[in-house]
Amino acid sequence: MLIPKGFNAAGSHVGLKAKKKDLSLISSDIPCTAAAAFTTNIVKAAPVLKSIEIIESGAKVSGIVINSGNANACTGQQGLRDAEEMIQAYKNELNCETVLVCSTGVIGVPLEMDIMCAGIKSTAKQLSSEEEGFKSAAEAIMTTDTFPKTAWTQINVGGKTATLLGMAKGSGMIHPNMATLLSCCITDINISRPLLDKAVKKCIAKTFNMISVDGDTSTNDTFIALANGACENPLIEEENNEYTAFCEALTLVVESLAKDIAKDGEGATKLMEVCVKGAKTEEDAKKIAKSVISSSLFKAALFGADANWGRVLCAMGYSGGDFDPFNVDIFFKSPAGSIQLMDKGAPVNFSEEEAKKILSENEIFISICLNQGKSTATAWGCDLTYDYVKINGDYRS
Amino acid sequence: MLIPKGFNAAGSHVGLKAKKKDLSLISSDIPCTAAAAFTTNIVKAAPVLKSIEIIESGAKVSGIVINSGNANACTGQQGLRDAEEMIQAYKNELNCETVLVCSTGVIGVPLEMDIMCAGIKSTAKQLSSEEEGFKSAAEAIMTTDTFPKTAWTQINVGGKTATLLGMAKGSGMIHPNMATLLSCCITDINISRPLLDKAVKKCIAKTFNMISVDGDTSTNDTFIALANGACENPLIEEENNEYTAFCEALTLVVESLAKDIAKDGEGATKLMEVCVKGAKTEEDAKKIAKSVISSSLFKAALFGADANWGRVLCAMGYSGGDFDPFNVDIFFKSPAGSIQLMDKGAPVNFSEEEAKKILSENEIFISICLNQGKSTATAWGCDLTYDYVKINGDYRS
Repeated sequence: MLIPKGFNAAGSHVGLKAKKKDLSLISSDIPCTAAAAFTTNIVKAAPVLKSIEIIESGAKVSGIVINSGNANACTGQQGLRDAEEMIQAYKNELNCETVLVCSTGVIGVPLEMDIMCAGIKSTAKQLSSEEEGFKSAAEAIMTTDTFPKTAWTQINVGGKTATLLGMAKGSGMIHPNMATLLSCCITDINISRPLLDKAVKKCIAKTFNMISVDGDTSTNDTFIALANGACENPLIEEENNEYTAFCEALTLVVESLAKDIAKDGEGATKLMEVCVKGAKTEEDAKKIAKSVISSSLFKAALFGADANWGRVLCAMGYSGGDFDPFNVDIFFKSPAGSIQLMDKGAPVNFSEEEAKKILSENEIFISICLNQGKSTATAWGCDLTYDYVKINGDYRS
Repeated sequence: MLIPKGFNAAGSHVGLKAKKKDLSLISSDIPCTAAAAFTTNIVKAAPVLKSIEIIESGAKVSGIVINSGNANACTGQQGLRDAEEMIQAYKNELNCETVLVCSTGVIGVPLEMDIMCAGIKSTAKQLSSEEEGFKSAAEAIMTTDTFPKTAWTQINVGGKTATLLGMAKGSGMIHPNMATLLSCCITDINISRPLLDKAVKKCIAKTFNMISVDGDTSTNDTFIALANGACENPLIEEENNEYTAFCEALTLVVESLAKDIAKDGEGATKLMEVCVKGAKTEEDAKKIAKSVISSSLFKAALFGADANWGRVLCAMGYSGGDFDPFNVDIFFKSPAGSIQLMDKGAPVNFSEEEAKKILSENEIFISICLNQGKSTATAWGCDLTYDYVKINGDYRS
């Protein structure tokens, strides 16, 4: 793991969940330029409403306090007061101007604020710039995730080395729309607020907004990027080569997190990557790719390693994206091989045995060519399994 | 069962499926005024394309030939020739002007036309105006349906008694949009084509377009209404009381079929009815109701009888319908009782034990009041179960 200069993190179990870690803290020695994207669900959790206020004020931000186990969503006015109290409690520990707040977990239950405030106090004492602190923080934001999700990279900017480190939690209620789940990316690059904001929007559109686990857009989706400038590159304030390099690095990190979230969708056994090529517009390609990864029927077929390509074409057909069904090529690929299912709209004979072998792998690539233009898009999803039903049949118990 | 005058039906096993009935025929002694609604999926099955041609021509129609076991979808030019051949084969038997054609079943496999043509010939010999014929026809259109779906009613029009009889198949790939699954309603009423068309559009918007099993809009959705005028009422050609009575009767029959389809969704154990009241517009109420019945997360919670009302509010929030989250009332009801979960946006304390009892019934009513206007809408869905995954993990085998 590579850690950007000037950042610290900690994660611990404070008692919001029975046993697992449930509180994450991130801090920066230097107040950060901040940009973020939030859920478009009109039912927004209290921490989302609070963090939006701070982001919109343009204030520099010194950290993030994140709890799992309770989403502080649909909790009315009390929820807003509790989110504010979390901010205050962490600000007092850091002795700083302001921090952002995120929550994830059960909806509709008030936070236990005694536990929360004591937990913030004790966890703040564990803040560390070592790998262990960041690993704990990535663990403590997990809900039904089966593994922590982190990604990092480095780039050269103006003779300096900038580091980007991202973390995310996902699992269920995953169908981001202009925002996403809980995730943050910290970096020591020196970049202006408008450009950080632009880079985040551009990155999210190709990464978190191109995944789905179950079609449900959460009330708590939040992605935060913090840049503290500690790597001391000359300030990036125009769309130059350094800006482009930063955008690419950010997308690299966030795409890795997004794929991990799709792969670790609730109950999932397979990652599905759908790549649409030859579309008239990028918008068409995106709609078609997202429709295929979201189809319950195709997701269930994938679980059963059943090469039911008709369901792929069906999902393309109701996507709202424009294409000619009589011009479509469809391929299924995986480490076990590749088969063509449809050639210019006509079914291709294929070996069911070979198809089964290909679809029995953990990572399945669906390649679709529309043969109508030059636009492309990629989306990521997972299969629909017995365990998804099991996990969500009784999540609160 | 009440059967409209002048209609005949038959259903039989001709060999498209291994054992179950797979061919349905309906005929009318008098050519019928016809109206229909079809899938909005841009990938339309061959029989859909053929039936659209006939409906758009305005021709009088003497019957419908419907096969199950094979959807004749994604079958290219051969599929279109096969659908045309089905029409010709049935026309020859009836010695009539034209008939409509529907198919349902596996996608992407060519029809076995030898079996089909021989089957149409032999089944046509069994056409009967008795109940048995219509029951067989309703059975023969089933795929993964667990029970046949029929509904009927009678109304008085101009001193005559008109009868309406509907049948439908549903199960998976159910998320109609301006059209639906396979269903037809036959009637002996005498009504003009423009008014029959108008009545069908109005009826579908409140019935089939308000159900969802899995969010997948099929390539084959078709609803056909045939009116042969055999009850000899004076022709309905303006929007008078008789027209209104017919619209109500049609909606009664089709709503019953729509609810049966939701109840018999693939793997379903529960029917969910979501009623939204107090919306600013009917469009808002519809979006919100449909979003709740479509949420995989809430559907799984319902399967587990888990009163996870936060997921209801979450699904309302991403529906695209307008409302104020701080003004919402939510109730769960069933034959076992009623509980309030949310009161003007604030969570209400409730007994988990009572909630479990209520949600363990077969029919669950979710009542939502937005307290912002006078518009209402109702939608129907089902729970998401292990069996849905099982059925769809290996549908083709």
